[in-house]
Amino acid sequence: MRDNYPTRLDHPSDPITRIEPTVWGQDDDGPLNAAELTKMESDGFLLKPQTLGQNWLKPLADELDRIGADAPEGDPRIIREPNEGTVRSVFQPEQFSDLIAEVITLDNVLPVARQILGSDVYLHQTRINFMKGFEGTGFYWHSDFETWHAEDGMPAMRAVSCSIALTDNYPYNGSLMVMPGSHQTFYPCVGATPDDHHTSSLVKQEIGVPDRETLTKAAHEFGIAQATGPAGTALWFDSNMMHGSGSNITPFPRSNIFLVFNSVENELGPPFAAAKPRPEHLAARSARPFAESDLLST
Amino acid sequence: MRDNYPTRLDHPSDPITRIEPTVWGQDDDGPLNAAELTKMESDGFLLKPQTLGQNWLKPLADELDRIGADAPEGDPRIIREPNEGTVRSVFQPEQFSDLIAEVITLDNVLPVARQILGSDVYLHQTRINFMKGFEGTGFYWHSDFETWHAEDGMPAMRAVSCSIALTDNYPYNGSLMVMPGSHQTFYPCVGATPDDHHTSSLVKQEIGVPDRETLTKAAHEFGIAQATGPAGTALWFDSNMMHGSGSNITPFPRSNIFLVFNSVENELGPPFAAAKPRPEHLAARSARPFAESDLLST
Repeated sequence: MRDNYPTRLDHPSDPITRIEPTVWGQDDDGPLNAAELTKMESDGFLLKPQTLGQNWLKPLADELDRIGADAPEGDPRIIREPNEGTVRSVFQPEQFSDLIAEVITLDNVLPVARQILGSDVYLHQTRINFMKGFEGTGFYWHSDFETWHAEDGMPAMRAVSCSIALTDNYPYNGSLMVMPGSHQTFYPCVGATPDDHHTSSLVKQEIGVPDRETLTKAAHEFGIAQATGPAGTALWFDSNMMHGSGSNITPFPRSNIFLVFNSVENELGPPFAAAKPRPEHLAARSARPFAESDLLST
Repeated sequence: MRDNYPTRLDHPSDPITRIEPTVWGQDDDGPLNAAELTKMESDGFLLKPQTLGQNWLKPLADELDRIGADAPEGDPRIIREPNEGTVRSVFQPEQFSDLIAEVITLDNVLPVARQILGSDVYLHQTRINFMKGFEGTGFYWHSDFETWHAEDGMPAMRAVSCSIALTDNYPYNGSLMVMPGSHQTFYPCVGATPDDHHTSSLVKQEIGVPDRETLTKAAHEFGIAQATGPAGTALWFDSNMMHGSGSNITPFPRSNIFLVFNSVENELGPPFAAAKPRPEHLAARSARPFAESDLLST
């Protein structure tokens, strides 16, 4: 398969203009109106307040601890805080929780993903996160697509992420920063992928991030926007959006559900720049469309 | 001398309501109007845009490197980046630079300090800082007065800080966070002051900071505000304001001039909770009023 976005190179390489559109569907294909689709195409992200009503928030937050208590020791999908045992993240939480699976099938979630990507979709990666206050460390600038392409074999930019806040996002508690419009450019990165890179990159990514000169130019070209809003707000953002987050020393923790939808027409192949694919819970390799019938209780 | 604000204790102790006013002067005593003085009294901080005009910014930023190049190796007032030799901070920069001394004597600087404190003033601590982009680490919540009282022997809350931005402060590049109104409460801290505490506390303060439960209650009571604004903006804030800052992973560095004015009627005594006072460049012990005649060239 042709590699339109070479990365993890042994030499610096010029930015590549994106080939694919960002928005593949039309306004009569789903819940988003024409203005929202235009904004998504140009900025690469879209905030949708009240995607989840207040009554969802507490039960969803509770699911994290319930899953943590129920799940077997050593399950790679459960990420616990080093010395405490409390759960920081659960990957593929919809496999543990019908409540979370229901979120995916909501009228303002799954149909939005289908509309943006102009096809049926499946879940490439999902997680629910709880980031404590006082000591949230944030994560450095990167494009998710760069990793999904290099390490998972995702061929084209036809995936979209939906991050639904379960807590209020302020400008000062480590909320996501994006460079609006940066999704139109692919920045090849220098450095070969280490074996089992995901074991370190999920803690701190150092390979697959642009150099400082590139990021400085991009920040001056695109500026920086922050994804803030009350709990229940969904942030939709393109797979190739340059994003990152700072630390959180405030007492206000952050929790979110993070869903990555990929088009069924964008099925993964062999990794473009890694020895072997990442584990299934980080990058699902079956492109079977997600459906209501995937609820545990059905 | 009576200790109205015991801290560095061996046991947790209840918050203490501030005894002194925040604003000691009247609106006809200086440049601030009645509304600004009222805001300073109630919130504990005040933003004054255009305290420095655009023409000041570049020359002042250049002073940092010039001082760094001229100053002798090993001068404790010059703080350099660990492996690079570039200058991160200069303490008492007015002793190296008439340009910086001139900033202090501006009509919208020194007279504001005198007005807020209702007396003549002297410089307790001064510095000019350059915080690089990408890797700014921020600093944790604290009240400056807690340290000045415990380690410098400052008896009363009659000091005010003026931080003048030489670069734009955005919500996302590590700008100062404050808890508005928190200056009305003194939070005693647990833990004795180690010897030469300033050698570690200026990098990362761990003694003299409130516990998490206290900070959580304070953040919910007062909320958090960020001191943002274009280069040239001055942030005036009370000595007992609870403040901190997050990391800065953006390419946008931050630089500022930081001036602490103390009332000449609030002269330092022996430290209230430390074996010996901090060095002169961190806490000047002579309460002689600052004047134009202190310019190097006069």
